[in-house]
Amino acid sequence: MPAETLNGLDLKQLHETVDAIKGDPEIAHFEFRNSNEWLGGGENRSTIREFFGAKQWDTSRSEPFVFTNGEPPVLLGANEGANPVEFLLHALAGCVTTTTVLHAAARGIRIESIATRMRGKIDLQGLLGLDASVPAGYESIEIEMDVRADCSDEELDDLLAFARGHSPVCNTVCRPVPVTVTRARFED
Amino acid sequence: MPAETLNGLDLKQLHETVDAIKGDPEIAHFEFRNSNEWLGGGENRSTIREFFGAKQWDTSRSEPFVFTNGEPPVLLGANEGANPVEFLLHALAGCVTTTTVLHAAARGIRIESIATRMRGKIDLQGLLGLDASVPAGYESIEIEMDVRADCSDEELDDLLAFARGHSPVCNTVCRPVPVTVTRARFED
Repeated sequence: MPAETLNGLDLKQLHETVDAIKGDPEIAHFEFRNSNEWLGGGENRSTIREFFGAKQWDTSRSEPFVFTNGEPPVLLGANEGANPVEFLLHALAGCVTTTTVLHAAARGIRIESIATRMRGKIDLQGLLGLDASVPAGYESIEIEMDVRADCSDEELDDLLAFARGHSPVCNTVCRPVPVTVTRARFED
Repeated sequence: MPAETLNGLDLKQLHETVDAIKGDPEIAHFEFRNSNEWLGGGENRSTIREFFGAKQWDTSRSEPFVFTNGEPPVLLGANEGANPVEFLLHALAGCVTTTTVLHAAARGIRIESIATRMRGKIDLQGLLGLDASVPAGYESIEIEMDVRADCSDEELDDLLAFARGHSPVCNTVCRPVPVTVTRARFED
């Protein structure tokens, strides 16, 4: 019998994972990592590969993921890559989408399609330190999602509200998360 | 006379930008955008191109940036891409780095190199809705930066503290930022 999937997710693996965590919450403790190197100006590059989760270091990635931040000319760059606040929008869109798909599968809702458009407003006086009353980060982020699925609009609204509340990236943005920056000396 | 640069940034353009914003703060109001499409399971793809800033829509990018979110097997995926919480670390590393480089240039500090390592802890009981007391997002994010520059350690510590406080992505993570999710119906 083929594995039963819904929304591209293996339902047996999903339910086994949830049951395993209920039996041993330590399984749910993850640590993600990133290394980044400055290349010059507004250009820098991240290398992402290992992470810890389910009580072990993951070894599933044969090659690292590599991503380049850049800046557009109006922000003193040459479009070497998307800029960091744009990558944040990508992370947020992806996380709300995946959280929606995951909880739809758990509820037995079959998703046909999800398309998302988003915009974030930011006042760069904050970055530049020109006005102490202006926060450096996004003032607000608006997400519009077109979700098509085999359920009612009311069920969709409930699903999206749940996804907004349970998406790790959305919660990291909505909630104050402590970030420490420490000066270090790595071995050459 | 060649343009004077420091840390890969054009100092004349930097100071002209700051002066222009002081004269007309509206120039600093930016809006960034992203579109995302679900591809199945934990895989989805963002397209990033236009943004508004300096009182106009940017036209500097001939092609969009495209990024794919995925999940590792332990999170029901096939490593189609880095996952959203990893992309968030990439955005954060890049933003703190660029903010450091920018303010170093403004202070006349010449940066030789910046290498960053970071880790974020997260308890996936939050995502799964298994324990209402567990937040869905990162519990904390630790950033270690090896910065080499032509200044004292005290000046470096001051620079890093300033960058932590003025990085747009860091401030978006540290501060509660409102995110709205609205159900929409886009034209086909």
